[in-house]
Amino acid sequence: MKTIVLFSSLVLGCLAQKPHPCKSPPLLTGSLSVVAHHDLMAGAKYTYDAFGQRIRFREIGSYQNQTFWIDALLLFREGVIYKINHQNHTCKKEKLRADFHPMEVPNNATLLGQVILGGSSGPGEGLLVNSWYGEMKQGKYVSTVTEFGCLPVSTLFHTERTGWILTSFFNILIGIEDPQDFFPPEFCQDAVSDNKGEPADFYSLFIE
Amino acid sequence: MKTIVLFSSLVLGCLAQKPHPCKSPPLLTGSLSVVAHHDLMAGAKYTYDAFGQRIRFREIGSYQNQTFWIDALLLFREGVIYKINHQNHTCKKEKLRADFHPMEVPNNATLLGQVILGGSSGPGEGLLVNSWYGEMKQGKYVSTVTEFGCLPVSTLFHTERTGWILTSFFNILIGIEDPQDFFPPEFCQDAVSDNKGEPADFYSLFIE
Repeated sequence: MKTIVLFSSLVLGCLAQKPHPCKSPPLLTGSLSVVAHHDLMAGAKYTYDAFGQRIRFREIGSYQNQTFWIDALLLFREGVIYKINHQNHTCKKEKLRADFHPMEVPNNATLLGQVILGGSSGPGEGLLVNSWYGEMKQGKYVSTVTEFGCLPVSTLFHTERTGWILTSFFNILIGIEDPQDFFPPEFCQDAVSDNKGEPADFYSLFIE
Repeated sequence: MKTIVLFSSLVLGCLAQKPHPCKSPPLLTGSLSVVAHHDLMAGAKYTYDAFGQRIRFREIGSYQNQTFWIDALLLFREGVIYKINHQNHTCKKEKLRADFHPMEVPNNATLLGQVILGGSSGPGEGLLVNSWYGEMKQGKYVSTVTEFGCLPVSTLFHTERTGWILTSFFNILIGIEDPQDFFPPEFCQDAVSDNKGEPADFYSLFIE
């Protein structure tokens, strides 16, 4: 009986109709990792607000064996990214391109398929997910989200310049701990926007 | 009550002691995908026998927008790989290097961490996994397996020459359908081993 209950979510998912693009819960807290290029690995804790189109994340990474640390606030609606240095109390404010980030599946994405990560032979051994793909001006993507809860699991993003970038999501909680995560710190108020060069996007934080 | 049962596997896992390297079930059938380089994507159906150290897989892929198709039998114990062409009834037999393949976590791997892919806020929304890393002569790896069942979920493998290669595993069943999957076809009996060049490994099937 227990087993029947345990499997019910997987089975119900398998019997359900073809999935439609879904909306993740609007407020999420979690961790992510980014692997790209020949030698980039980074991990970040993030807070995401889909209502306000805002992401805050604190990230530690390693690129060509050099460790780096970033605290960043991405305000997609305002088209602004703050790169925050708490040690020096300094702030870099840059233009942010708002067309794609891996926390959401774009509305016009196409279903690549529904699979079970791991397996379905025993309880706790698998996760039912839907993979979506699409193409946009900057590149192409494959986004994978859970069938239940529509939580992000991984995103592959490809551009000519960068090759494949893998973002994996884990330890996600629904809700946020501190709404002030989305406020730039006091010392950022006077930061002047740097409008030179291309606007940044989500991945610029990892790959210059 | 239902919810309590549904969460029990995740919770039990979280409360369990630090994970130790585990052995996957010895006979597995499933699918995998490989993403690498600037423009490689491939998918394969595979059958794996850990007792006999054998993998058979039928793979379809795309590299630089060219589609390719491979049927291969990897016999690690014999150190031989057969690349089978059913259309022409031909067979290429090559030396196989047996030191690493992504279906198993090496015994001397180090625990990178235990995480929940997706989340734990609702039933069916997350998968408890352990990630292991290590380094060997050819490169370094990060292997992720389920806490329950020790099924492979993904492997990242990095060499200087290839950069990161991502292998993801899904739709895994315990057991195999046909033990004859591990026999080379009749027309392979006379294939002569090609001993020129470096021995092949698991990834040579995808990246030359």
